[in-house]
Formats: sequence, C-alpha cells, structure tokens
Amino acid sequence: MSLLPGSSFSFAHPALFTDLYQLTMMQGYFREGLHTQDATFDLYYRRNPYQGGYAVWAGLEVALDYLEALRFSAADLDYLRSLGLFKEDFLAALESWRFTAQVTAFPEGSVVFPNEPLLTVRGPLWEAQLVETALLNILNFQTLVATKAARCLSAVQTSRYGGSVVEFGTRRAQGPDGALGAARAAVVGGATGTSNVQAAALYGLTPVGTHAHAWVESFPTELEAFRAYARLYPDSTTLLLDTFDTLESGLPNALTVARELRAQGHELRGVRLDSGDLAYLSARVRAALDEAGFPDVQIVASNDLSEFVIESVIREGGRIDVYGVGTQLATGGGEGGGALGGVYKLVALHGEDRMKLTGDPRKTSVPGLKRVWRATDTQGRLVIDVIASLDEPQPQAGARVSDPANPLRNTRLGAGLTWTDPRHVVMEGGQRSGEPEALTTIQARAVADLQRLPEGTRRLLNPHIYRVSLSQDLQGRRDALVAELRERHGL
Amino acid sequence: MSLLPGSSFSFAHPALFTDLYQLTMMQGYFREGLHTQDATFDLYYRRNPYQGGYAVWAGLEVALDYLEALRFSAADLDYLRSLGLFKEDFLAALESWRFTAQVTAFPEGSVVFPNEPLLTVRGPLWEAQLVETALLNILNFQTLVATKAARCLSAVQTSRYGGSVVEFGTRRAQGPDGALGAARAAVVGGATGTSNVQAAALYGLTPVGTHAHAWVESFPTELEAFRAYARLYPDSTTLLLDTFDTLESGLPNALTVARELRAQGHELRGVRLDSGDLAYLSARVRAALDEAGFPDVQIVASNDLSEFVIESVIREGGRIDVYGVGTQLATGGGEGGGALGGVYKLVALHGEDRMKLTGDPRKTSVPGLKRVWRATDTQGRLVIDVIASLDEPQPQAGARVSDPANPLRNTRLGAGLTWTDPRHVVMEGGQRSGEPEALTTIQARAVADLQRLPEGTRRLLNPHIYRVSLSQDLQGRRDALVAELRERHGL
Repeated sequence: MSLLPGSSFSFAHPALFTDLYQLTMMQGYFREGLHTQDATFDLYYRRNPYQGGYAVWAGLEVALDYLEALRFSAADLDYLRSLGLFKEDFLAALESWRFTAQVTAFPEGSVVFPNEPLLTVRGPLWEAQLVETALLNILNFQTLVATKAARCLSAVQTSRYGGSVVEFGTRRAQGPDGALGAARAAVVGGATGTSNVQAAALYGLTPVGTHAHAWVESFPTELEAFRAYARLYPDSTTLLLDTFDTLESGLPNALTVARELRAQGHELRGVRLDSGDLAYLSARVRAALDEAGFPDVQIVASNDLSEFVIESVIREGGRIDVYGVGTQLATGGGEGGGALGGVYKLVALHGEDRMKLTGDPRKTSVPGLKRVWRATDTQGRLVIDVIASLDEPQPQAGARVSDPANPLRNTRLGAGLTWTDPRHVVMEGGQRSGEPEALTTIQARAVADLQRLPEGTRRLLNPHIYRVSLSQDLQGRRDALVAELRERHGL
Repeated sequence: MSLLPGSSFSFAHPALFTDLYQLTMMQGYFREGLHTQDATFDLYYRRNPYQGGYAVWAGLEVALDYLEALRFSAADLDYLRSLGLFKEDFLAALESWRFTAQVTAFPEGSVVFPNEPLLTVRGPLWEAQLVETALLNILNFQTLVATKAARCLSAVQTSRYGGSVVEFGTRRAQGPDGALGAARAAVVGGATGTSNVQAAALYGLTPVGTHAHAWVESFPTELEAFRAYARLYPDSTTLLLDTFDTLESGLPNALTVARELRAQGHELRGVRLDSGDLAYLSARVRAALDEAGFPDVQIVASNDLSEFVIESVIREGGRIDVYGVGTQLATGGGEGGGALGGVYKLVALHGEDRMKLTGDPRKTSVPGLKRVWRATDTQGRLVIDVIASLDEPQPQAGARVSDPANPLRNTRLGAGLTWTDPRHVVMEGGQRSGEPEALTTIQARAVADLQRLPEGTRRLLNPHIYRVSLSQDLQGRRDALVAELRERHGL
C-alpha cells in the first residue's frame, strides 16, 4: 500500500503511547496474578458525530498495524524504570510481552451506529487493558474524519452536476499525522485526493493542487504568472482567480491562457475560486467558460468549506466541480468539537458479565460477549441492527427487541429480512487474520454501505434515526447484572 | 530535552510533508529563474482562538527542528519523479536543497495577538515557499492548544484554593502526534503533566494517572480493588470513586484505605471524580476527607472538562485540586472548531512590498518588512503593540497609530512607556541561532507574560481587546500599495 518507507503514525514507541494508568494497572494485574485472566472489552460510541445519522468506521488497518508492532524496547523499559513506579519482575515480563488477543470488528469502511460494539478485544486482561488508549486514539479520529468526508459527499450529491471532494487541510490539521491521518480517513469516506504529498505517497492517494497567491504576486502581472504556470504544466494547470479580482482580472486572464493552451494543442484543466460568494462566482465563471468554448475546464473551490456550505452553494446555483475542503475535514470540525467520543469498556471477565453502574441510562454499558446482527430488506437496504448475546441464534420475525438507551421502547422484528453478522475476527494470536485491505476496497465498501442506508439517514441535520436494538436475552442479562451490582454494593 | 530516541512528529519525510502546489510552484520558480529571489513571508493569525483576548505562541522549537531536518531523500525524489510533474533538472537541484533562510520570531511561550507577524521567513523564494504548509501545521496547532491550557489555568485561578491542570486527552486526540503535540503545547500553556507516557518521555514531562473502572471491576469488591492498588503504590495512589456510587461506595472505601495506608506509614495521594455533579461531589468529598483527618488527600476531577466547566464548578463551590482536562484540551475544542486560522503571506519580494487584494478589510494583509514594538508601563504591564516598518525607530509618545482592520480608528501613543522589540532572529543559514529552549523555560515565559496582560484581557468571553496598531509609516505603505495594485489591474 505504501509507496514510501516510514509510517504515517508516530509509533516510534508504540508501547509507551498509552496513558500512564494502563501501565500501572498492568503491573497491578501482574502482581495480583490477574493479568492472564480472559477479558473482553468492547469499543463503541454513544452519539453519532455532527448530530448525523451514522458514522463511517475507519482506522481499523492502522489499528492492526499498531497491534502487530506493539512491544517494549530496551529504551522504553529504561524510561519506565526511571519513573520509580515499576518493579523489576514486571519490567522483565514486559521484555517478551506481545499482543496475542483476539480482535473482532466491523470491516473498515462499514457504516455503523451508536452503541454497537465496533471492535471487541478478547484475551489476557493486561493485553486488552494496555491497548485501550491507542485504539481509541486511532479509531476515534479516523472514524470522525471519514464520517465528515461522507457528509461532504452527501452535500455534493445534491447537485445534479455531481462533483468530488478533495482534502486540503494540512495547514490547519492537528500536527503532522493529524494531517496524514485525515488525508487517509477522508479517502475512506469518499474523497478522491489530498493536497498532502506525504500522505499521497504513504497511502497511494492522488495528490492534487493548484497554485497559491504568492505565485501570482511573484510576477509583474497576473497574466504573466498564469502563462508561466501553463507553460510548465500545459496539461495539468488549474489557475487561481482571486489574487486581485476574480471576475475582472482572474477570469479574463484565465480565458486568455486557455485559448493560448488550446492553440498549442493543450487544454486548461481548471480554475480555482478561493474567496467571495462561491455560488455567484462559480455560476458566472461557469457561464463564461462555457460561452468561450471551455465546457471541460473544471471549477475548483476552497475557502472554509463544510458540508453545510457546500449544500447551500449548490442550492443557490453554484457550479463547482471539485470541492477542496480544508480545516473542517482535516479536523473533523463542526458540531461535536473535533472528537468522536468512542469508549472502550470491560464487558466480561473469565466469561462473567461486567459493567460500570451509572445514573445516566444513556451511559450504561451493555455487558457480555455479543454479536451484531444486521437486517437488510429485499432491495439490500439496511433495516435494523440487533445486538445479541454471542451464542444467540439469528433473530426471528416477531421477536421483541429494545432500545439500548430506553428499555421501555421496544419493537417487534418484521418478516422477510435477511440477517448477516457483519463483524468478523480480524486478528488472532497477535497476527492479522488476512491480508491488509487496500484503501480502494475500503472506500468502495463505504460508498456502497452509504447507498444502502434508509431514506433520510444521510440527512445532514435531524436525520432519520437508524434503529439499533438489544435482543431480549441481552437486555435481560443487563437488567440482572444491574440488580446484582446494586444489591452487592448496598445501593 | 528528549529522554527517548525518536521524534514526536511524523517527519520521516519532512520535505514531502507539504501541499503539492508548493512543489509545483518551486519548480516553476526554478525554471523561471525566480527561485533565489529574496522573499519575505509573515506568519500571523487574524482572530484570537476561542473568542478570547490573546494567544500563547507555541511550537517554535518544533518548527525549528523541522527546518533543520528538512531535505529530500532519494526515496522522496523517486516518489516525485513517479508523479510525472517534475523534470530531471529540478529533481537534481532538490538533491542538495537545504533550508538556508533567516527566521525571526517571538520567543516561544510569548503572549501574542491578531495581525502581528509571529514568525517571518526571509530568504530564497523557493525555500520560503516550501515550508509554508508544515510551519502552519505545527504552529497553528501548538498555539491553539497552549492557548486552551492557559484559559483552563485562568479558570482554575478563580478558585481561592488554587489548583492545577493536567492533560488527559490522548484517547480523543487527532492521531498519535495530535496527542503528543497536545501534551507538549498544554505544558507550554501551563499544564503540569500529561497522562501520555510517550509524550512525558519525549519531552521530559511529568506523567500522571490514577486507575480506571476496569481495575475495580476486575476484583470481587471495590474495597479489594482499592486495597490492591494501595498495596502496590502506597505513596502514589489516587482512587477512582465512581465505579458504583461516589458517595455511597467509593468514598467510604477510599477512607478505609486511607486509614489503612496511614497505619502503615503511608498516605493516600488522592481520589478521582469522573462523573456526576463535580461541584457538589467535590465539596462533599472534601468535607469528608477533612473531617476524617485527610486534608492533604487531593481531589482529581475529569469528565468532559473545559475552561467554562472549570469556572462554573468553582463558582458553585467545587473543591478540586487537579483538573484532568481531556478532549477539549487535546483537540483545542470549543469555539473555533479545533483550528487556529494562522496564515503565511508573501509580504516582500526583492525588497518590494507585496500583498493580495481583497474586498474584506479584515483579511487585507500588511505588506513589507516589519518589526513589532511592544510597550509596557512602569509596572511591567503590557499596554500596546505597534507593528512598524523594519527600519522605523522606536515609537514616540504622541505619534498616531491605526487599527490594522480599520484605518479610521486611530489613536495617539501615551508617554512613560517602555518599548521593546520582542522578536529576534532564531535561525540563520539553516541553523538555530542559539540552543533549543527547555520547555520549563518556555512555560515560565508564558506564565509570566499572562500575568503582564492588562486587566480583563484574560476573561474567557468578551475580554478586553488588547490594542495592536500599525505605525503611520506602515499604514501609508499599505495604502500606497493598494492604490498602485488597483490601478495596475484596472480595478
């Protein structure tokens, strides 16, 4: 997949990329003889990002790379020794420590929903504990950005002329691999390229770009600047129109260069708008290009785009072909504050259900080993997901299932549904179960899954809420454990 | 500074960590013979993050590391060749390419304001052009998070009991070095530690932590879990109280363990609250600890904290000693959407002023080589910053200066001010001008600068607006260039 040596993620010291308490707890489990107990943790989130109707699950391949590479180097152990918290027998045990647990997950690029176990780690307690921090870091961010890209694409698809999204956000991304990770995740969610050359090289993406205002300002006139660029890149020039004035200066100069290129047997590839009223300007520029005989010159737009800006520009008659989305895409900005609140919770220990009590039913975890059943209708459209106990059979028509956040809301399953279990074992004994998937495969899965969503689920605001339910059995187990814990703790 | 080999930032391929257009423009400058022209770019931002009154300038040392390391490897050149955009003479020139330009900047940790040139690159055009993307990536993010940390500290300081801030956000940060970079920047802004062990090791920070709910759930009872942890860490245990019920279960069990530890000659270090009404719970827990003879047991709080939550918890009587701020600190969340909108603009080319025209006066750049003069009063408090031409003398009492965004708003400088130029040359000929600064030095500068701000400037919302003005000379040069450009482009 990678065309360059070097990882996109800073895992020079993967084992230390964790919260301190994971390591102090590991030592605790080790000294108490609990470290090899069979533990199961579920990774899930509680609310869709951006108040939307879904998320695009991303980052799994990066997470598996991390798990495979995970070990403690001599330098890592020296650092831990220097903290004065760790004893020699524990540090010695870390020397040969490896991640050997089983990982079950949705395939990367799947469309997923709140409260579903997206990834489950089952294995020795001290292994499953250590990896919490890095798994959440990778998967929260990748899923956040992939979902943002899918939302931008949804907005683009409201135009009858189509269009594409490219990622332009490196300069505002959160550190270098904030940028690299965002470029990767954006492509998972449907973007077709990135301006970041290193990301393109690492992930085999399409690098894209135009030129900056500084280019124009480095020449005596805009026309000379445009001509110089076109001379050098006669088949791949996109001219930035707004250094002085988009319609009065940039557009006529670009038309001149387009005619000159054509006279030499080349075609101008595009023009870029980077300020002003993008709806108005793009419509005017499109009309002028068409009238002058350049219907194939693309209009690229940038300047603080988001899914909402894209939607409104299209609604107001904008004619943009390529949307360069920067800050909002690279940082997962907007409602939700740049973070997906994924969590990783202990749900079983040596086969027994575990959970944390809480006063807030929306935050109550679902204990136990489980499975997700996804139903599709005869058109292949998603209908409902049911979270069930691991050993339960496929759901049956007529069975009652309940809302995880509100057990009083329950419903009967319909007939004529096709049930599948979309999750599968992706890692066993510390090794991937199969070959890493190509980003093109992952992106194709996301695009296909998004098209299978029920009507209204992709709406940007106030979407149709896709149903995720608990089976009767699992709901019963949760109720029983809550009652037992309350009694045991005298609450 | 680093205790571990390996960088925190993913610069395995620093030269490719850029937008494609920087490289295509570089080739253009090279082929047009413009690449060695003397160019000057200013890096600045237009609006304070979080609608606040200032920013804490951070990331300079990281940026200088990047500039020193910057070169094109054989693998980088092979990748560029594969794109079909670059010619062999240009690729050959990149083999020995180095960053040799001069960099002038505010010292890291300085308090800074909108429109000031925070960092200026002056040197060959193709060098200054390439580095735009990475400089903005590093400095935007570091400054965003350092400012967030300073705001959280401001909120903590509204408590007469004091308190400290630690960074707990790795699991929600934007990729691995989103987390590492946030830990570093948070310390610049005044945080005292981080939960991220790799960040602590790389930057010499204090790693901090407690234990998780999973620890408690791994034992038959909460008391057994607490006792096991205290046995292992008798002098550094902080117990998490809310696995079952903070006041009914966690608190009495923690008191039992505190008494047992004391009987063995140790002291419980702290307790942690992670859910519920933190103001109410912390006051109740504080009273119970004090009454039981444990006034030195610290209360650590976490759970979606921000500067605003901290301020309100304190206002309502909360008694927290250590604020573990996660998502909002690690992602610079809140108003502004997780990004600082810093820009990097060409301001001069072979000594002549340059700028981009725009219809929006707030976005009009200030052309030319310049200097920042900062005035303090007799108490050392900051009064005003004046952006002047590079060769102008120190501002004089009575001189008129104008608002960069609104030339009609102008004012006369007062008397009795001490003027200094806080910026200095930090890099020359591709080498740092001095030794790298320690983070402790940088943090101390930030803490001192924040205390020198005028009354009201640190207010979290609707702060006093610190004045940043243009000298008459610089304003005149800008007006002249606007007029000249409009005439030249027939606008």
